[in-house]
Order: sequence, then structure tokens, then C-alpha cells
Amino acid sequence: MVQITNTAQQQNSSQVAFISVSQMMELVRHIGTENFITGLISYLEQDFSRWGLFNKSPRFAAHSPDGVIELMPTGDLEQFSFKYVNGHPKNPMSGLQTVTAFGVLSNVATGYPLLLSEMTILTALRTAATSAMAAKYLAPKNASTMAMIGCGAQSEFQVIAFSTVLGINKIRLYDIDPEAVAKCQKNLAGKDLEIVACQSIDQALINANIITTCTADKRNATILTNEQVADGVHINAIGGDCPGKTELEAKLLRRADIFVEYEAQTRIEGDIQQLAANSPVTELHRVINQQQPGREDENQLTIFDGVGFAIEDFSALRYVYQLAHKYDLYRSLELLANPSNPKDLYGLAMMSE
Amino acid sequence: MVQITNTAQQQNSSQVAFISVSQMMELVRHIGTENFITGLISYLEQDFSRWGLFNKSPRFAAHSPDGVIELMPTGDLEQFSFKYVNGHPKNPMSGLQTVTAFGVLSNVATGYPLLLSEMTILTALRTAATSAMAAKYLAPKNASTMAMIGCGAQSEFQVIAFSTVLGINKIRLYDIDPEAVAKCQKNLAGKDLEIVACQSIDQALINANIITTCTADKRNATILTNEQVADGVHINAIGGDCPGKTELEAKLLRRADIFVEYEAQTRIEGDIQQLAANSPVTELHRVINQQQPGREDENQLTIFDGVGFAIEDFSALRYVYQLAHKYDLYRSLELLANPSNPKDLYGLAMMSE
Repeated sequence: MVQITNTAQQQNSSQVAFISVSQMMELVRHIGTENFITGLISYLEQDFSRWGLFNKSPRFAAHSPDGVIELMPTGDLEQFSFKYVNGHPKNPMSGLQTVTAFGVLSNVATGYPLLLSEMTILTALRTAATSAMAAKYLAPKNASTMAMIGCGAQSEFQVIAFSTVLGINKIRLYDIDPEAVAKCQKNLAGKDLEIVACQSIDQALINANIITTCTADKRNATILTNEQVADGVHINAIGGDCPGKTELEAKLLRRADIFVEYEAQTRIEGDIQQLAANSPVTELHRVINQQQPGREDENQLTIFDGVGFAIEDFSALRYVYQLAHKYDLYRSLELLANPSNPKDLYGLAMMSE
Repeated sequence: MVQITNTAQQQNSSQVAFISVSQMMELVRHIGTENFITGLISYLEQDFSRWGLFNKSPRFAAHSPDGVIELMPTGDLEQFSFKYVNGHPKNPMSGLQTVTAFGVLSNVATGYPLLLSEMTILTALRTAATSAMAAKYLAPKNASTMAMIGCGAQSEFQVIAFSTVLGINKIRLYDIDPEAVAKCQKNLAGKDLEIVACQSIDQALINANIITTCTADKRNATILTNEQVADGVHINAIGGDCPGKTELEAKLLRRADIFVEYEAQTRIEGDIQQLAANSPVTELHRVINQQQPGREDENQLTIFDGVGFAIEDFSALRYVYQLAHKYDLYRSLELLANPSNPKDLYGLAMMSE
């Protein structure tokens, strides 16, 4: 808990709203994961609908032998946001998260930050919300079964998003780690879902209308081959999300209609890094804005090659900024100096409290 | 003050050190501005000496009609840093700072942030320290007089840095705003400096061995013309720092030997944006590493075209991270989720405290 301890601090600094991990947990529990995701999708659709108004650039990525640290900035005419996010596949071996994140939302007119928020939990929610939003336009009608390949930190959020938004009620779980499957199954108990723990990917794919791949290995893996996948399926491929980290066989990609968030970034980071730079893909906002079709028939094989784009974080930060104020679940952080005379920063720095 | 309120929070989150505005003020007052700058220069020289080990890129800049928001990332094999900084020249009209900033220092091996720090005050200190470091190699020997053109938030820090590092003891102040001059003069009283408030730039330049220009107007201004400046002077030009924002007449630039921090960025943002892209400049690290000469004779006109580079913020964050621990002037912030099972983020999010 952040407390303002005296009046001098209030005069000398400008306060930024701060949502801690505990407060994010409280916010999600208070509203419920399902409602949180539904509300977040409405923010995502608003922002995808006005795609042309955003500053867009592929994220900044600092690669090192063990992982990557990324900065993901974007903004419209009124607000700016960025997310700091790391991806370190070996972290769990030392008890750390593969992915942690935090983000900032700012006022473009003044440049002043409005919100600093944890985003480890929030990123999981926005990734699931984005996948489910894409599937609304791409999944076969009346889909009821999803294969969930990879039962790591993202898996329950994906399952809940698809069950909430698309009415998926049968989940087939697979992971190379049986404990991850057991954890996922346990966390989803009581959700009114028929859950089957599978022994292989092939078993998980049986009758699946939607296949979600969310694996973490930092290499060009082949989680799904072309031959394993039937026509008419929607693949929600979100684990291939950085250079040299892919999940789908190239032949499978070539057979499918591929949808992406922001082509310039997905060419670098997505499964389509395996394809020629001019291979056809459709940006999702064009489907949402009815400029291009999503799924057109029941035999079509569709792939959402999701890598996570800055506008999704922008939407998520806008959403929690509003929620945190509504439910008073934030504290104020003394992050910015605010001298009474803006030209007298030195006088402020020397001031005794 | 940030307080850990219960054990559940400690278990579920990973703590990041946080230096607030008040704590930065306390740190600077405790050590003294002069000592702080001297110590910071030793960190800057360490990092400029190993320039080749850093990831370098021009900063990310989101421009808007009223200003700019920038992200400045860099890192070596062990640590990564970035700074968020805005520049909004109209802010003071509504009682806000033109420039505010905060920054983060992270562990490259895990991707986890180590430190979140206010950087409004810290940026002023690192900008002054960088200018003084450059002047050690570029200013004429036995320089005693500095003209300070622009008496805004950065001015006192510059004066103290030059007096501490180069022994400057005569300061000639000029600003279009007489109140800014009076503020600067008042803040520097008691520093054993001979200070003259001037009525014009020409008056400020009389006998000046060093000219610091630090003005804020976001346009191609001409603060100094070629004819105003004598041979043998060192110009510390730090106000021209974004596209369309310059201070020196192009003719003056062409006459001088120009030194920059990181050429790729300075070509975009510095006063040299007025020159051809292949005009000769020298990166400062080459001078510090004795690969190229700094000042060679007493008649040479030298210009440090400073725009502020990410490595300087990296040095500053490393420096205050060490100081904050030494003097116990930081708090812990619950910024990162840290489930006991890294794959069980959902279980954490649902956990009641």
C-alpha cells in the first residue's frame, strides 16, 4: 500500500495511479474473470475499430541468450501507452515467471503518466480476450470443443475466454508436462466444462473445432503438422511470438487463411516468419471493420497467428484505469517531480521537507 | 511511502525497488549536488569507456502537436534500462513541468526489473554531468567564465557541474524571462561564484570561455549566430534536442569541431540536423577512449551537440540503485506477480488474501 505521508510530498510531486499485483488480483476476483474478459473485449473492439488513429510500430526488443525484454508503445491522439514485458523460458527453473510485465498509460497533451499497472496478470487476460475476439470472426459456427495444447500460465485464461465468448464447453488438454495438465484441470473444475486430459496431441485434436497452441519453447518447434489438422478448424496459435520461436508446420500455414494483428510485427515474430514476406495475410482490424471477410465457409481452415500487439495493451490499460477508479482499487505513487515553479527544479531538489 | 502490508503480498509478488521524488530529493541533499555529480560522472565514464558493449538505437519518439513522449532503451550483457521522458514546452503555462521522467533498471538474465526511479530530478543531474564530462575533454584550459543562456529547470545543475568539474567561477546568466534569471541567481547564491545577470546574449558572452545554451522553444531558433562567437570557445549546446528544435546558426556549426553522444540519434535530434548527413562529427566515447582527440589547441571552436542518450540514463540508474541501497533510501513496490508455481498464474489471480 502506498500512502501519502505528508503535505510536502503532495506539493512537490505529481501523483500517478498505481495498480499493484494484489489490487489487480482483487479487481479480477471482484468482477469475475468472465466479466472482466467480456468488458475487456468491448474495449479491444473499440480500439481495433479505430485502428488507423493509432501510432503503430513493431515492438522494441532487446534479445539476450536467455530471453528478451520488450517495450511496446502505441497511442492515439489522446492517450499513449507502453508495456514492458520479458520472455525468459528458463525462468521457471529458478522459480520465476517466463513472462512478467507492467505498463503505463499517459496523457498525450501533457506527457504526464496517468497510470502504472502490473501487467503480468493483465497480459494473460488481454491475450485471452484478443484470441476470443479473433475467434468470434474466425471460428466455425457452433464450435463446442477446443483442444488446448500447452497448459502453462496462459491456458486457463484462454479456456475461460473461449467458453465465455464462444460457448465452448468441451476442453481437451495436452502438455508435455502432466503436472501442468493437472493444474489446469484443477483450476477449471467447477466451471461447467467437460474437461479431458489427453496423452498426446493427436488425442487432444479429436473432434476439436478450435485448436489453441500456447507453448513456450524458444525454438522453431512443430507442435502441429499439416496432416494432423482437419479442414474446417480454427487454430488460435499464440505460442509462436518471437524470432526463431514458432509452433506450426509451414505446410499447414500455406494451407490456411491467416489472420494477424499487425502485419509488420507478425512477419518478424509470428508463425508466418516461416513464409515468404509477401504471403497473403489479413489484419484482424479489417475483419472487425468489415473491410475483409473472416470465416466464409465451414470447410475453411483459419489461423489466428497471435503475437500480442501494443494496441491490446493500450485497451487493457484504458480498461483497468477506468475499473480501478470505479472500484477504488489503486493507490497513488509519487513518481513525478512537480515544483510549484516549473522552472525551479533545482529549488525543489534542495528543499527540505 | 510504500509498505508491505501482509505476508500474502510478499509471497505473491516480486518486489521492485522504488525511488520516489521525495527519496531522490533526500538522496541529493544528503550527498550534496556537487558530490552527486562527481560520482555520476565516474559511472558515465565507465559506461562511455565500454561503449561497444551496449545495445544502441535512436530513441522511440511519439510526437504530438503539444510535445513528445519518448522511450530510451539500452543495455549491456548484464543490465537493461529504459527511460520514459516527455517534452511539452507549453506545460509550464498550466503549472506543469516541460520535462518529466522516470526509468527502470532490469536484470538481463531474468528480465525482471530491479529498480523503478523518478528521473525528473535525476535527468537534470545526468544532463549536467554529461555536459561537464564532455567539457573536461573539449573546453579550453583554465576556463573560468561560463555564459549560461537559458535559466530554466536545467540551468543551476549545469552551473554546479561546470564549477565542480572544471573550476568555472564566473557565471553570466541570460534568459528572455528576467524572473528565470533571478531564480537561478538566488538558487546559486552561497556557491562561491561570481554571478552576473545580463540583459542580452551579447552581454552574457563577454569573456566567456564556455557557452551553455539550454533553451526550450520547440522551433529552429537562432540563439547564437556565427558572428557572436569568438574562436577558442567551447559551446555546450543542449537545448536543440528534437527534430525542428535547434539553437545554433548553421554557419556556426560549420566553423566548429562538433562532438556528439550517438551520431545516429543526434543526426535526427541535435543541432546538426541542419547539416548534411555526412558532415564530420566525433562521438564523445572515442575521445574518452583516446581514439580521437578532443580539444587540440586554444583557438579551436568546439561544440558539444548534446541531446541526451540512453546510456547516460543507464549510468544514472546504476548509480542511484547503488546509492539508494547504501543509504537505504528506497521502498519496495509490488509490481510483478510471482506465483509459487510459475505456470499457475491463474491460481494466483484467483487467490484470496
